[in-house]
Formats: sequence, structure tokens, C-alpha cells
Amino acid sequence: MSEPRPPVTLSSELLEALRAILGSDGVLADPDAVEQVTRTCLPDRQLPSAVVYPKNAAEVQAVVRAAARAGVPVWPVSTGRNWGYGERNACYEAGITMLLERMGRIWHVDEQLGYAVVEPGVSYKQLNDHLKRSGSRLWADCAGSTQHASVLGNALDKGRGLTPMADHYGALCGMDVVLADGTLLETGGGPAGHNTVRHTYKWGVGPYLDGLFVQSNLGIVVKAGVWLMPAPEVFDFAAFEYKASPDRLGAFIDDLRELVMSRAIRAHPHLANDFAMMCILSQYPHEMLEGRRHLTDDAAARWRVQHGVARWTFGCGLYGSREEVRYQKRMIRKVLGRYGMVQFIGAAIRDDWFGRLVRYVAPIANRLLGKSPEFTDVMVPAINLFRGIPTDEFVRQAYFKSHKEKPSTDIDPARDGCGFVWIGPVVPFTSEHVMKALALSRLVFEKYEFDFFVEVIVESPRSVIVLVGVFYDQKDAVDSARARDWYHEARDTYIAAGYPPYRATTMSMPDAMDTNLPAKALLAQLKAALDPQNLIAPGRYGTPPR
Amino acid sequence: MSEPRPPVTLSSELLEALRAILGSDGVLADPDAVEQVTRTCLPDRQLPSAVVYPKNAAEVQAVVRAAARAGVPVWPVSTGRNWGYGERNACYEAGITMLLERMGRIWHVDEQLGYAVVEPGVSYKQLNDHLKRSGSRLWADCAGSTQHASVLGNALDKGRGLTPMADHYGALCGMDVVLADGTLLETGGGPAGHNTVRHTYKWGVGPYLDGLFVQSNLGIVVKAGVWLMPAPEVFDFAAFEYKASPDRLGAFIDDLRELVMSRAIRAHPHLANDFAMMCILSQYPHEMLEGRRHLTDDAAARWRVQHGVARWTFGCGLYGSREEVRYQKRMIRKVLGRYGMVQFIGAAIRDDWFGRLVRYVAPIANRLLGKSPEFTDVMVPAINLFRGIPTDEFVRQAYFKSHKEKPSTDIDPARDGCGFVWIGPVVPFTSEHVMKALALSRLVFEKYEFDFFVEVIVESPRSVIVLVGVFYDQKDAVDSARARDWYHEARDTYIAAGYPPYRATTMSMPDAMDTNLPAKALLAQLKAALDPQNLIAPGRYGTPPR
Repeated sequence: MSEPRPPVTLSSELLEALRAILGSDGVLADPDAVEQVTRTCLPDRQLPSAVVYPKNAAEVQAVVRAAARAGVPVWPVSTGRNWGYGERNACYEAGITMLLERMGRIWHVDEQLGYAVVEPGVSYKQLNDHLKRSGSRLWADCAGSTQHASVLGNALDKGRGLTPMADHYGALCGMDVVLADGTLLETGGGPAGHNTVRHTYKWGVGPYLDGLFVQSNLGIVVKAGVWLMPAPEVFDFAAFEYKASPDRLGAFIDDLRELVMSRAIRAHPHLANDFAMMCILSQYPHEMLEGRRHLTDDAAARWRVQHGVARWTFGCGLYGSREEVRYQKRMIRKVLGRYGMVQFIGAAIRDDWFGRLVRYVAPIANRLLGKSPEFTDVMVPAINLFRGIPTDEFVRQAYFKSHKEKPSTDIDPARDGCGFVWIGPVVPFTSEHVMKALALSRLVFEKYEFDFFVEVIVESPRSVIVLVGVFYDQKDAVDSARARDWYHEARDTYIAAGYPPYRATTMSMPDAMDTNLPAKALLAQLKAALDPQNLIAPGRYGTPPR
Repeated sequence: MSEPRPPVTLSSELLEALRAILGSDGVLADPDAVEQVTRTCLPDRQLPSAVVYPKNAAEVQAVVRAAARAGVPVWPVSTGRNWGYGERNACYEAGITMLLERMGRIWHVDEQLGYAVVEPGVSYKQLNDHLKRSGSRLWADCAGSTQHASVLGNALDKGRGLTPMADHYGALCGMDVVLADGTLLETGGGPAGHNTVRHTYKWGVGPYLDGLFVQSNLGIVVKAGVWLMPAPEVFDFAAFEYKASPDRLGAFIDDLRELVMSRAIRAHPHLANDFAMMCILSQYPHEMLEGRRHLTDDAAARWRVQHGVARWTFGCGLYGSREEVRYQKRMIRKVLGRYGMVQFIGAAIRDDWFGRLVRYVAPIANRLLGKSPEFTDVMVPAINLFRGIPTDEFVRQAYFKSHKEKPSTDIDPARDGCGFVWIGPVVPFTSEHVMKALALSRLVFEKYEFDFFVEVIVESPRSVIVLVGVFYDQKDAVDSARARDWYHEARDTYIAAGYPPYRATTMSMPDAMDTNLPAKALLAQLKAALDPQNLIAPGRYGTPPR
């Protein structure tokens, strides 16, 4: 990683104003402290001058107004745990980073209508704990990464989960937004202040404005409604391993789409390749490199077989009435059975004798199947993710190459210097496109000599996200450059093939709209109209840079 | 209805320019012809100076540029068959009305991924015929009104259908939009021109811009993707009549919500009151008025009983695998059975001997149940609506008070002088709110002495639309004024109670954002940025008037 330059300091007048608004513990301007809280997993980094911590909407408004008077840009971040996408980094040097993690209020949970109203500091864990403690019938979806990620932050970056409510942005309904002039906007069209359907009816009156504030810098979302799902009558879980020959993968992809299209699969599983599974189950076998930068196909195969990992694996929740789940099982068994092994192991999370039995038998069964003990360790957390119960179990993979072992608590890969970067092109859910996207990906990995990590994420019946990522050594400038070059070439490759990445990292934000100039011009017009000083997160998602 | 003023004529220079772009048959400037094609069912009317008919996006762009040079506003309309909402009427006098009905191209149907790409002139009938003719596995949803309505026009006005794909705007994905400066925008973020997922992935890259163009005047949508559903393995249909006492209606509403929340009901049924059913089944019994303006409760009850109509009625499609439909039937029978009569009559649309048998038995059964023969007439069209097969059977109700009988073909209530107006507040799907909205509605109907017409439309598990409407005599100025006053008071009442109407008519558009001033200000800023001449549909949905 390139050495960060020392931060530009803010004027004492602005710092005073910020401290007057937020209290002195709400403003971080000490360069070492700023450096520490804004660490990133990416190979590029740009430091802010200060980090501020508003506690409510009024403080956000006041900070925006103070920053406007001083002409200093504000980069808002919910909790900044989007590791490998940009975390708390702006796409420019200096300025104020606004961290919303202290806005942690759950305003309301509506049991009948199935939604919560939350602030950007509310994490998956907090929302889930709240629902469980209150005996709610509702499940909140969560991301597969960390339990401490922001519910709103993830949704506003179009992040994804695993349950039927995996479309996090799609589940948002009705926002409070602080605009660049400090105004507080209530979306939904009205009547403002007493719109009874602002969190139940998504499209509102007139143009649908919520969309302006996703992957955006046109305002700061300080509160939003999030739709939740009632716990189904029956929950189960299918574990699938692809055992067929690689040349049948295309047919498998088409069959998988039909399962999703016909709602035999309502979850949004991640089809992980062998290397993606190994990151979770093991540490990197540096000893197998034999002087190379990545494992040969032979070495990777040996390593995979040692741990009993299939070429492709996924888990998948089943949801519904008993008749519906019977249908889902029938179809999953029939269709996926053609390509590999399906096991229904949802009982492993049950509190009764049967659940205990399954948990007792699982390690024995895994041993018989030639699987390493770690398979058993991740079983319950994996199933729970499909019930919206968040975990830090899987994000521990961030440590699998840079560290000797994965920490068991206090996971923070950015702080701990784990280097990795993600990119996830959206691809039509057909064999033709998915196989092409996989082949293109593999070429870029080979060119830059990284191990091929991929998860095919079911976005909908119509699209998948082909999520790829590389792990690199942050302390090694050459390796960092290799990761950076890999990222940019992968991105160019996908865009040239017509597969836009579903999220930008801060490394690609300034170019995000370069392949759609009318959209770029329109965004610039919107930005100039709503934020003429270019104050909020300049440059985010292809809007004009600072 | 107030007599329309004679239209302001356009300059001969502009007319020449329009004829050069569109050909002489693409420009209608003769006052009589303009009057005829822009008739409305509403009590307020404002005539344009000319109607133009572009055939493709390039012609739309050229018209917008010509109108900009002349400083004349353009009111775009897809096909303008939104009878009772505004049709082809602008909310100002004069200007150009742009009717897109000649843009009737179906660009593409993707069988695997389940979507079509259509122009604004494509009607439900055209799309459905296209799918049936090509042997497609896909069903398109349709509105319950006319088969000749525009698929895109209805979606862009947030119209609704009846199948699981009833959320027409929600089913749009990826638009081509002509902006006020004549630019053609491709939404989705990019890569423009070869974005493979623009019709499969809804949220795109960066801010989600499609939302800017719904119930909007920020651009003219000239093409869009529409998601379609694959025909389910099993289809059935439940006909329900509410027979319980009126004081259990609240409990019924809550139970109905739970059926929708648990996906035992996937369709979006319309719960119609007795009067709404009678409009379909009969003509208005003027002879029962006895000098009053609306029927007494007694008269209405006698009339209802004559025809065997329940207080509340709905039909509802069932969809899925055989296990799923079994579940749906079990739940519908169990829950709705508490409140009335449920009959599963989906077989009536089958082509086999059983279908013929059901159709043969239906009139006999209806007679035994004390129902009028018209019940049998509407059975098949009603079931077909839940398979997305459009019909003009139900929109014929428009003629039920103003005419002696309903025409059987060539339905055009605006042309034929039928006076009616709709308003549909969105209401949280709880007994408390729905009962309150019904009670408020009834008061306004009583004050203005109209018969109470209401349909409770299932919007989602979280909201319903309480659709109400009145029929009045267009030729009678007093009756027209009564309808106008009814509309404005109903609207004020709903907004005061926190229930925003899901659509505005041209009569209320200028005030559409008056109860949310920050949203109104934001929209004005957006409009000024994208359309500084205020050229496209000025005043639509609360943006600044001409």
C-alpha cells in the first residue's frame, strides 16, 4: 500500500464549530486517531482531515451547514464496515468523514405490517437482537459479511443478503434525508409528518425519490423504513455440493435459474468455488506455492481434496408452509440431484432432541465424507444466515492469507491490515453469460497471478452477481500494485463485456459513469442543482470530482 | 362539464416544423378533431392546441426540440386510456399533446429471463396476443380496466393489475428516456448500448434513476423493459362473497392481510362493495331514486338482493406448483370460510371436458344461489384477468349510469360522454386504518349525495388502495360541479388523515406536493435543472406550473 500523506488540517474555526455541534468527543482530528479509524483493506487510500460522529439528524444538518460555510466536503459513511469496497475512505484527499455509527436508534418495529424504522448506525446484530428480545415474529435479513455492518449503509450501497428479503435496497421504504442545504426531506411525497403509508407503500406520490439516495451523494439518509419478513411456518436448509463434470456447469446454471424462477428456491444462495470455500475452512497454504504467486491447478486440487471440498458448494434456506417446503425439497432434490449431493440439514439449528442429534452426528458424517472438522464449525452459522441471524464467522476469511490464523473475536480486517478487494459484475442468469463471465474472470486472475476466488450470487431469477476478489499483502508495494491493476483490468473487462459491477469501490468511483455519458451528464446536473457547492461526497459514483 | 374554450392555435412555423418531422397525418390541429380525441370523463377539461403522433424515439426527440425552439409545452401521453384519471388532458390550456400510441413496437421478449421490451404504444392486448401467438411460457399482467391501455403508460402512472406481477411500476426495468434537451438517456448506469443486465437488474449503477420518470415530467419514456411471469404449473381461482355481519369486517381485513403476508394469496384482489359489483352486473336503477340523488340504504339493499350480490365480493387467482396451490386453497378455505362463501372455479377457463362442464353448470348454480345471469357472463373474463388476459368487460361499467345500456364493442367512455372520476388513497393494511378510511369515504359520499362505490385493492402485504369513484352527468353543470367538489373534499379528507392518493387526476396535479414542501422544492430544483424551459408537462405532479 502506498504511504498515506499526512492529512490536511481543518481551520480552527471549523473545528470549533464542529465541537460546538457535536461535543469534543464527537470530533476526531488527531492525525494518528484519524489514520486508525479510516484504515482500508484496499490498495489505495486517501486520508480525511477529521472524522465526526453526529448522534441525530439535527447534528447532521448542523455539520452540513458548518461544512458549507467553510467550503469543506463531507463524506458520509454509515458504519464503514464494507471491507474491501472502500470502508471509511473518500475518493479524494482531506475533508470531513462523517461516521453515523452513533445514530443507533431503532425507532419502531411494526409487527402487523412487517417493517422497522432505523437509523444508519443500527447494525444487523442490533436489529436482530432487538427482534429476538422482543419476541417478534419478524426476521431481518443480514449481509453475509459482518454482524456489525449497518443495515442502512449496506442497503444504500445496494448490498445483498441471503433470505427471500436479500434485496436490501429493495426492502427500504420511506427515508428521512438531509440535503446539502441542510433541509430535512421526508420522501414519499406527503402528507409529510403524518403519511401513514410512508414505510408500507414504496412508490409514494409523484416521482419516486428514494432512488436518488442510493449509491449516491445527493443527500445523507438519516432514517429509513426496512421491510422484514414474518418467520415462515417451516424453515429448512439444503446443503449442495457440485460433483458433476465441469462441462455440465452451464446446464446446471440454467437449471438453477429455473428453480429460482419457479420459486422452488426463494433464498439467494452464493455458489462458491473451491477456493472461496477454502478461505473459510483453512489458512492459505503458502508452503504449496513453491515459488509461485498462486497455486497451480494441481496444488489447488490437492489442497481442496485434503479438506473434502467440492468444486462448487452452496447452502440455501427453504421457507414457507409445510406444503410449500415439501415442493421446494422435491424440486431441489430432483434438479440439483442431477449435479451432485443435496443434504437437508435445517434441523441442525433446532433446540430439541433432534437438533442435538443432528449436531452430534454432523462431525461424524463429515469425517466419513472426507471433510475437515471446520465444515462442522461453520454449519450452524451458515444455516443461521439464512434465517437472518448475522455472524462474524465468514468475514474471518479476510485473515486467511495475511495472518497465521483467523481471530475468533473482535474482527476488523481494515484495522488489522488484511489486504483484499472485491468486484461483482451483474450478469444475466443464463448459462451463456455466466460461463462467459467466469471465463473472462479466470483470464484476469491468471494474468495477475492471483488464486481464482468466485461466488455466483443469485440476485433474482433474472440476474446473478459474479463476485470475485483477491487477497494481497498490504505491506508489499508490488503486491498492492498487482491487486490494484487486477481490479482495474477486471472492471474494464466486465464493462467491455456488458456486465456492470453492482458496487464501485472508492478506487473506481470517479469513473463509475464514464461508459454512459448521458447518465453522467444528468447526474452532474442533478448534483449541481441540489448541491451547488459539491459538498457531500464529491465524486461518489461518477458525479463531478472535487 | 364546463364548456371548453376554443384552443389557442400554434404558430404556422411550429406546425410546419411538426409536419416536417411527423408527416401531415402525424399532426392534428383542427379544433374539432383535437376536441374529439382529447375528451375526458372528468368534470374539468383543458384543450391543447394540437395533438402529435410520433412513431419512434427520434421523432419524439425532434418534436421536443421543435417545441423548445417555439417555447410551447408538450404533454406526453402513452395512449390516454386512463379514463377517470385525466386521459389526454393537460393541467393547463393550449400547448401540444403528444400521443405515443403509434409507438407500438415490441422490441424483444426474453423467454429464459422473463421480460419484454416495449414502447409506450403497446397495449395489454397487443402484448398478450404476441405472447399467446408465439407460444410463450410467459404471462403479462394487465390492468382491470381496458385491454387497449398502454402497458408502459399504466406502469408510469403507478397503475395496478391483479396477478402476482400487479405492481406495474415495480415490474419496469431499464428505460430509454427522451430528456427536455432532446437527449436520449439509457438508464441503468452503463455500459450504455451494451448493458446486458439493463432489463434484468433493476437498481443499476449509482443512483437509481428510473424513479425520476414515474408520475413525472422529467422526461418522456420511449421504451422500457417489463418483467413477466412464467405460467405457473397450476392455476386456480377463488370466488369469495362476504356473508358475515358488517361488524366483523375489521377482523376480516386483518385476516386477509395475513393471507397475503404468508403468501397464501399471491394475487392482488379487489374487494368490491355491493355498489361496485352492481355497476358491472346491471344498469343504474334511476326508478329507485324517488327524487333523491342517490339510493337510500333500503333501496340499495333491495337492488343488491334482486341480483344476488353480497355486501363484499372478490375474485382471486391461485398460482404455483400443485403443493403450493394446495396450501393456498387450504388457507383460503380455512380463513375466508369464517366470513362467507368460497368457491374454487378456476376450471371454468379450461379447454377440456371439465371446463365445459363447469361453464355449463355455472348459470344453473348461479340461479339456485339467487344470482342474476350477468354473474355467469363475467365469470370467464374475471378469471382470465388473473391470468393477465385483458378484457373490456369491466370497463363497460363506465356506461352504467349515463347510458341506457353498456355497449358490447368499441368501448370509449371519454368519447361517449360518460362522466366519472376516481381517487384511491393508499392505506396501511390494518383493520384500524382500512375501517377508518372506509368511514371517512362514506361521509364524503353522503355529503355530496353520491352512491358509495369502493374497492379495497390489495397493493401488498403492507398497504391497500381504497379506490372510490363517482358517476355523474357530464351534460349537467350542477352534477359536474358536485363531482368536482366531491373529488376535492375526498382528496383533502384522505390527506388530512395521512392517506395519500396513489394517483392524481389532472384536477389535483398542481397541488400534488403541497403537503410536503421540501419534496416540492426538491422537485422544482430537479425540474429547473433538467428542463429549464419547463417544457415537458409543466405542473404534472406538483412541479411548477406553466
